[in-house]
Amino acid sequence: MRPVHYKLLGEDGSARLGELHTQHGAIPTPAFMPVGTAATVKSLTPEDLEGMQAKIILGNAYHLYIRPGHKLIESLGGLHRFMGWEGAILTDSGGFQVMSLADLRKVTPDGVEFSSHLDGSRHFISPEISMEIQRSLGSDIVMAFDECVKHPATKDEVKKSMELTTKWERRSRAVKLQPHQGLFGILQGGMYPELRAEHFDALKDIDFEGWAIGGLSVGEPPSLMYEILDSCVPLLPKDKVRYLMGVGTPEDLVEGVARGVDIFDCVMPTRNARNGTLFTSTGKLHIKNARFATDREPLDAACSCYTCRKFSRAYLRHLYVSGEILSSRLNTIHNVHFYLHLMRQTREAIAARRFADFRAAFYRSYAKSKSIAEEELP
Amino acid sequence: MRPVHYKLLGEDGSARLGELHTQHGAIPTPAFMPVGTAATVKSLTPEDLEGMQAKIILGNAYHLYIRPGHKLIESLGGLHRFMGWEGAILTDSGGFQVMSLADLRKVTPDGVEFSSHLDGSRHFISPEISMEIQRSLGSDIVMAFDECVKHPATKDEVKKSMELTTKWERRSRAVKLQPHQGLFGILQGGMYPELRAEHFDALKDIDFEGWAIGGLSVGEPPSLMYEILDSCVPLLPKDKVRYLMGVGTPEDLVEGVARGVDIFDCVMPTRNARNGTLFTSTGKLHIKNARFATDREPLDAACSCYTCRKFSRAYLRHLYVSGEILSSRLNTIHNVHFYLHLMRQTREAIAARRFADFRAAFYRSYAKSKSIAEEELP
Repeated sequence: MRPVHYKLLGEDGSARLGELHTQHGAIPTPAFMPVGTAATVKSLTPEDLEGMQAKIILGNAYHLYIRPGHKLIESLGGLHRFMGWEGAILTDSGGFQVMSLADLRKVTPDGVEFSSHLDGSRHFISPEISMEIQRSLGSDIVMAFDECVKHPATKDEVKKSMELTTKWERRSRAVKLQPHQGLFGILQGGMYPELRAEHFDALKDIDFEGWAIGGLSVGEPPSLMYEILDSCVPLLPKDKVRYLMGVGTPEDLVEGVARGVDIFDCVMPTRNARNGTLFTSTGKLHIKNARFATDREPLDAACSCYTCRKFSRAYLRHLYVSGEILSSRLNTIHNVHFYLHLMRQTREAIAARRFADFRAAFYRSYAKSKSIAEEELP
Repeated sequence: MRPVHYKLLGEDGSARLGELHTQHGAIPTPAFMPVGTAATVKSLTPEDLEGMQAKIILGNAYHLYIRPGHKLIESLGGLHRFMGWEGAILTDSGGFQVMSLADLRKVTPDGVEFSSHLDGSRHFISPEISMEIQRSLGSDIVMAFDECVKHPATKDEVKKSMELTTKWERRSRAVKLQPHQGLFGILQGGMYPELRAEHFDALKDIDFEGWAIGGLSVGEPPSLMYEILDSCVPLLPKDKVRYLMGVGTPEDLVEGVARGVDIFDCVMPTRNARNGTLFTSTGKLHIKNARFATDREPLDAACSCYTCRKFSRAYLRHLYVSGEILSSRLNTIHNVHFYLHLMRQTREAIAARRFADFRAAFYRSYAKSKSIAEEELP
């Protein structure tokens, strides 16, 4: 048995119940991975995450390579030990961040030359170097190095980039990782179903431990993203885990699960928390709103997180408008708990074969006022 | 028995072991109060504080009056409930903050008119209004409203201010508080032992539940502060708790305890934490220092706090230089734990009647390289 492997436990329509096994624990899926860019899920301790039953988090190879450096983290025993996290870690390959954060990029068949967003220093990342970085970090799941195209892009642009990515993914697989690490391939092809199919054909003989769908949630409308998912999730092998990268809203997670996606990551719960936007069972709220100034209710009466058990909206608003550090933390606890709980609810629904009911109930409660939600109702 | 009262349990030289009783628990003394200015000890949850065995925190009447407003907090059930803190709370009177933070102050015999440091709006606080604010907040310990003079100040300036303070303290005592609240008087008199004595004479007939020493740690050298303490602590009644306001460094706490002080508050552990300055059993360190970049040791091998149990100096330096929110929190946990632990050590030493040994050992370990420490060694 490979150190990283997926076990399908049940299906309900296209939705899947499963377990992703790693040497840092088994992750019940569908699962959401809180984003821990710089070796911390912003404002939370590992203890906070454990308390919320988070089983896996995401780390960013690009950021950790730039600061403090993967070799330093390796010399200190790897990323798990460095950040005190005993659960599983997936690292991205740096490809997306090089495109979205770094300056003065120069892409060649060999790799990407770029300037650090921190100090402008010149760097070069290739598939081999990305694998070396992720090997040093010691994450459980390593992502292949890919090129990400901007949206919108012409079919020719997407095809050209996709063909480069195919070569880079083969080169990624050729690099020896640590024995406990598994490598996930990434399906590109933009908003073109036929390119998605072509890309899968080009990659399918590569023996990846899991499959990711990349290049979505890049500015396209949700309906288009769901259409692309409809076209490409069915291509993926049933015995491997399916990861929808960088997605998304609570609605996106429910729709992804409905289409057979197993794992997700997104900065939305953590970043929105710091900006005072909170997810509740009845929709989003902006805590800075004056109407919360005297509101003695918890953020979400249906929520069992520490923030909702202990504090009123009035207190949370006070912390936010006062710029208190605790605001970020209490809001983050709530939002991450909301995402993890949403995934727990999908798992329970799939196990009970009532996922369609859950999905309809979710929209009635969470997104009742939103046209996109109405459009997407099954 | 009054709701707020002190019980002297033992003495070792001038150092005192005791218990300060409140309706929100008994506080073993000597004790340190972490500062929770705006209804939060910055970056910490009540759970964090409970985990560190904090029994009492300080809240700032001035800040809470300005934002979110004491009436709002009262309507939400008081400060304890608002911030989710079940331990004891002492509130200051706002006098010090009006002097140090507010603009365009105008002091009259009636009170102080000033502009808010947040939005420039005009406000007025008198002894009666300070009592009303603190009554609304519902703190366990209410501080009398005083005027604070700048240091240095002439004897005439100090005397004039002190005489105004005497009147304000009498007016403070005349205001009815909540049944669970106790009122502490404040001894002023600047750096003039004879004025300190005169001020105590002027106040001693007022039936305060405890005594504070104000107007110290305002820029004078530690040796002068200790001299003033030597002159005025012996004036205070033995059956009341003694509170040294806004003090101080670890050395100041040890010296205060040695002179018979029971409780302390200071922003130093929390503010320094956010600036990356950490207190350890062998002295202070600045975590941003490059020499910690590869340091796999905990901040303080002798410390049992969450930060020291889980993380390396290298990780804490990474969080600090990356501007991560978690940096403030982990550093604050450590520094507050250090202060609380220092107080626990003084209590154990007094109980065992080996406080002099403890004090000497503290200087050998913590402050061995500091001339001030050497000067002050008993």
